Amino acid sequence: MGQTYDLIIIGAGPAGITASVYAARKRLNLMVITRDIGGQAAISGDIGNYTGYQFITGPDLAAKFEEHMRTYGITVKENEEVIEVKKIANAVSVKTDKEPYEARVVIVTSGKKSRELGVPGEREYKNRGISYCATCDAPLFSGKDVAVIGGGNSALDAALQLIKIARRIYIINITPALGGDAIMREKVIGSNIVIVYNNARVAAVIGDKLVKGIRIKREDREETLPVEGVFVEAGLVPNSEFVKDVEKNKLGEIKINSRNETSIPGIFAAGDVTDVPGKQIIIAAGEGSKATLNAFRYLAQTRS
Amino acid sequence: MGQTYDLIIIGAGPAGITASVYAARKRLNLMVITRDIGGQAAISGDIGNYTGYQFITGPDLAAKFEEHMRTYGITVKENEEVIEVKKIANAVSVKTDKEPYEARVVIVTSGKKSRELGVPGEREYKNRGISYCATCDAPLFSGKDVAVIGGGNSALDAALQLIKIARRIYIINITPALGGDAIMREKVIGSNIVIVYNNARVAAVIGDKLVKGIRIKREDREETLPVEGVFVEAGLVPNSEFVKDVEKNKLGEIKINSRNETSIPGIFAAGDVTDVPGKQIIIAAGEGSKATLNAFRYLAQTRS
Repeated sequence: MGQTYDLIIIGAGPAGITASVYAARKRLNLMVITRDIGGQAAISGDIGNYTGYQFITGPDLAAKFEEHMRTYGITVKENEEVIEVKKIANAVSVKTDKEPYEARVVIVTSGKKSRELGVPGEREYKNRGISYCATCDAPLFSGKDVAVIGGGNSALDAALQLIKIARRIYIINITPALGGDAIMREKVIGSNIVIVYNNARVAAVIGDKLVKGIRIKREDREETLPVEGVFVEAGLVPNSEFVKDVEKNKLGEIKINSRNETSIPGIFAAGDVTDVPGKQIIIAAGEGSKATLNAFRYLAQTRS
Repeated sequence: MGQTYDLIIIGAGPAGITASVYAARKRLNLMVITRDIGGQAAISGDIGNYTGYQFITGPDLAAKFEEHMRTYGITVKENEEVIEVKKIANAVSVKTDKEPYEARVVIVTSGKKSRELGVPGEREYKNRGISYCATCDAPLFSGKDVAVIGGGNSALDAALQLIKIARRIYIINITPALGGDAIMREKVIGSNIVIVYNNARVAAVIGDKLVKGIRIKREDREETLPVEGVFVEAGLVPNSEFVKDVEKNKLGEIKINSRNETSIPGIFAAGDVTDVPGKQIIIAAGEGSKATLNAFRYLAQTRS
């Protein structure tokens, strides 16, 4: 098993990285375990609302976050998947797909992943025309017709990235009108290659080895749109299954109080994986800081 | 009286500026009223824990925040002092020392100010050797002996700024050991011009037109330290007196829930003025974002 860490942070998005910087500055014996670095920030397009950067791309901001963390020489286990977090006697056990660890305190900052549409053809054509990351995959669809599924800020963000690349963009939005920030909505609606279908849902993805179209349903009428790319931006689900016994809300988000405490002493949580309202980079970063400050207080109070 | 704004934000520190950027991006009819710009961030020394900037000075970060706000063309009333915020029928009234205003929603981000020591000589020698802002005033004490009153991160920050300038620095700390981040504490303790007095309190500031020394008390013994500068870093008190009727805790901080709602509908609050634990720039910024997102939802739900 080896040593018991003061603190293990699970995840390295804005919340986890900020938590790690604060912990390193307090000289905690610390480890970060994460599947990837940057979280949802790393796959965002253009970011205009991270205070202090008037304009920066998601990958660039994520790179700055990573550099910030690296300057403190923090141990970061990458490409390692946590499969169980569980309270034991006076510590918390963290099992990954590679090794078991132990820490006196754990901060869960594992974020969210894309929600699947759950329609026929979706799994079949994943990575064969269906993408959950416009920043990663938009360049593959140069000059082609594509669909964005969703109607909030992440759908608008995907559309804005595709406007520079695709030939025509259908936005399939389930609600009566697009949501998200006005500043982004105006740019999307102002583009002459964007066609918005409101009150519409995807019924199926069709293709032949690769995506050839989507079937959509509006007011009981079905029609087929010929597209070669489908960008799914239909919300996010929390990566919280591996945290055992803590209270979650019906969305699966880990419930926390204003001190980032979960229902189990010694297990803290921060960022998109929690029930804090507002899934924003600046909010997640602030929450990560708060989680470490409170975890530090907990460590001081329970140190024997 | 003029128009009713959608939103008035009071204060322009990290919380207020972030709140204003989010509100501008949602095209709210918006005004910011503030005494100054940058808040406590603007008078901080070296900042190493604002995620995305490995290292930046307080004034530089505050300048970046201000530029960020200015790009949105937000109306900012500067050097204007709010004297009363009060709920009226379907709006909130905001009275300043210059004019009365009205908004459907107000976000209070007025932050904190330095706590006074409350000892003889303090008011008499304010700006005659006593300072509440090391960033502003440290350069005046080149080659001189000074005292820093306090033992947390802001006292350490003041000491670090003075190490480059002063001849000798006494730290007068009321607790048994210095607090704050280890990374800062080590630098301060490692300096050979710093002398730390723990379990010590200031009894009086003495002088003759200008500060000449402080009388300190340790274990019932009094002694006089000859210093020409006294930097008070003995905590902060919230700027919350002008907000009428909302619930506050015994420190005077405005109580908020996780949606940044105060006890009065239509009045939101964020940042250091609230009871959120952790007075940090990144936390205040995140809270400012959250306040606007929730204020926006409130506006949508109450729009007639």
